[in-house]
Amino acid sequence: MSVTAAQGFTASGIAAGIKENGNPDLALVVNNGPRLAAAGVFTSNRVKAAPVLWSEQVLKGGQVSAVILNSGGANACTGPKGFQDTHATAEKVAAVLDVNAGEVAVASTGLIGVLLPMDKLLPGVESAAAQLSAHGGEKAAIAIKTTDTVHKTSVHTGDGWSVGGMAKGAGMLAPGLATMLVVLTTDADLDSETLDRALRAATRTTFDRVDSDGCMSTNDTVLLLASGASAVTPRYAEFAEAVRAVCDDLGQQLIRDAEGASKDIKIEVVNAASEDDAVEVGRSIARNNLLKCAIHGEDPNWGRVLSAIGTTGAAFEPDQLNVAINGVWVCKNGGVGEDRELVDMRYREVHIVADLAAGSETATIWTNDLTADYVHENSAYSS
Amino acid sequence: MSVTAAQGFTASGIAAGIKENGNPDLALVVNNGPRLAAAGVFTSNRVKAAPVLWSEQVLKGGQVSAVILNSGGANACTGPKGFQDTHATAEKVAAVLDVNAGEVAVASTGLIGVLLPMDKLLPGVESAAAQLSAHGGEKAAIAIKTTDTVHKTSVHTGDGWSVGGMAKGAGMLAPGLATMLVVLTTDADLDSETLDRALRAATRTTFDRVDSDGCMSTNDTVLLLASGASAVTPRYAEFAEAVRAVCDDLGQQLIRDAEGASKDIKIEVVNAASEDDAVEVGRSIARNNLLKCAIHGEDPNWGRVLSAIGTTGAAFEPDQLNVAINGVWVCKNGGVGEDRELVDMRYREVHIVADLAAGSETATIWTNDLTADYVHENSAYSS
Repeated sequence: MSVTAAQGFTASGIAAGIKENGNPDLALVVNNGPRLAAAGVFTSNRVKAAPVLWSEQVLKGGQVSAVILNSGGANACTGPKGFQDTHATAEKVAAVLDVNAGEVAVASTGLIGVLLPMDKLLPGVESAAAQLSAHGGEKAAIAIKTTDTVHKTSVHTGDGWSVGGMAKGAGMLAPGLATMLVVLTTDADLDSETLDRALRAATRTTFDRVDSDGCMSTNDTVLLLASGASAVTPRYAEFAEAVRAVCDDLGQQLIRDAEGASKDIKIEVVNAASEDDAVEVGRSIARNNLLKCAIHGEDPNWGRVLSAIGTTGAAFEPDQLNVAINGVWVCKNGGVGEDRELVDMRYREVHIVADLAAGSETATIWTNDLTADYVHENSAYSS
Repeated sequence: MSVTAAQGFTASGIAAGIKENGNPDLALVVNNGPRLAAAGVFTSNRVKAAPVLWSEQVLKGGQVSAVILNSGGANACTGPKGFQDTHATAEKVAAVLDVNAGEVAVASTGLIGVLLPMDKLLPGVESAAAQLSAHGGEKAAIAIKTTDTVHKTSVHTGDGWSVGGMAKGAGMLAPGLATMLVVLTTDADLDSETLDRALRAATRTTFDRVDSDGCMSTNDTVLLLASGASAVTPRYAEFAEAVRAVCDDLGQQLIRDAEGASKDIKIEVVNAASEDDAVEVGRSIARNNLLKCAIHGEDPNWGRVLSAIGTTGAAFEPDQLNVAINGVWVCKNGGVGEDRELVDMRYREVHIVADLAAGSETATIWTNDLTADYVHENSAYSS
């Protein structure tokens, strides 16, 4: 279903030969209208890939006719030639679909610092256009995979309208944004300002709080396209919740497929003085390599949680901190709490609650354990 | 030689039974004067171990008669009882040596959240005192090891005076401070204010720039004790350089013995607009897990260097960044530079130069690669 669950969209996914192994590597998503409204959020990394620089400009217009996405190369740190390649890709899509190139978003993922094989990519655009289908969402989702072991899609159905989406991402997952490439589509009849508001609200508490390995990508892109094909204009709150639900579902799929991970860790910071404090503490815990190793070893090492909290500027008193791991309050008032032997860590899901005892705000950050498989996968990725 | 290289100091290291495996776990360093001047710097983690809370108060007086250090338990996050135990340890040392307990510094290292076995530690203090020797420096250095594979000592000899020291630390190494426990001694005739000035200047560019795994400890302690026994008062610049040299040497030993590491990575940030910018960028690179995995795989993945630089607030333009790995400028002007195949990464030492092209300031951060051995060691540490 994916990006073609909503009416008014066609999609395709093909193997253009960008990946040397012959796997699918080029996806095309087309909005057939009647509306072409769109919103986007992008990586906050100051080193931005060429397609991010291009698509940021496209999205300023609030209209997107098509999105072309490739795996097999990030087109990041590729200089003026890289930007020319992105531009040429958008022009090619525009020519083949007879749309305005300024309304074609481009997204790329893969190794940084390598130029794309344009001699394969440009003919691939023609093949992708020829295979566009109202049932092409799944093939598109498959074509954007890199080290992903599964493709990720999600759909939320409203009353006469729906929101669907696809995502890729398995490494270099960190806030601002947390994911790599995401395309969401809806047939709701909404303008780009409404889409932008709903998308920013949704990503702030979903993708932005998925922090698998603390590494921020140069290519993160999340797009939301509306065709208006359902002719239904849902209430904002209802629509925003649908977008949030799809983003949350896709974010969870990213965590569950994170490179080399054997544990999915939910870090819930409670009783913080502010939401910012809660997020800062959650991220600090999520990025503590020693804790991530301990969780991998099924060791409820709450001392490493406290040492991570202690590096933040959040409001708290060290002797009032409480930590629960999988329901057992192993740390109370900054010291030894319930017996750590009571903590059952056999399952993939691990739930850490950090109670700052400083207020009433809360935030949840998702991360993974740190494993030898992660090291292996990322020490061999570019070779 | 270690802490007993300088005149006026005795030391010992014994097995008190704190470690279950029977290895040495208690070290005592005594300043026999005539001076008892001292300075100390401690972890900036807000969750501080009991011995840090205690020793910070002791050092405020500028006088230290003795330092008692144990491995086998950090006495961190141990509540009021943990602080009482630290206090009782200092009192015991004071009674045995007939000194003021307010001049006894305490340092601990090991697992967080576990009370020390005081029934073993207190009798151990008597044994350690009985074995004090002007040749005990090496035994003291051995007794403070945890996961260290080797003990670390360093000596700098001046004209009629010297500075010596010992260090332990192999994991949880990150700035503010970068190390675990360090004791430096000198027989130079200097007051505590001079020691403090020299120690802060030295740690700022040595231990504070060793960032093995980004995790800040609850127990980091660096002490500098002066006996005045040489009756020589060196010029400040000469003394400060001696302290810096010993700290630098010990910091390098920490990096070379970091848990599971197979590569020592020197990250030199040049042409920064400010030293703060250079340090921020260096730390960001040092903490990028994806880059650390790539280095482990002997992959000169400069794209991961750029994506790390891009997460900082330092002054730079993305299209002016240059990166060299082991002497090869693999990234020029933010894009592809010299052939990455030219980079020889067979050796343990890896040298990354990040040129921000934004000024003339520089800073060097030391880190390690991320390996499966690191994961293994830290997933099994507390079990």
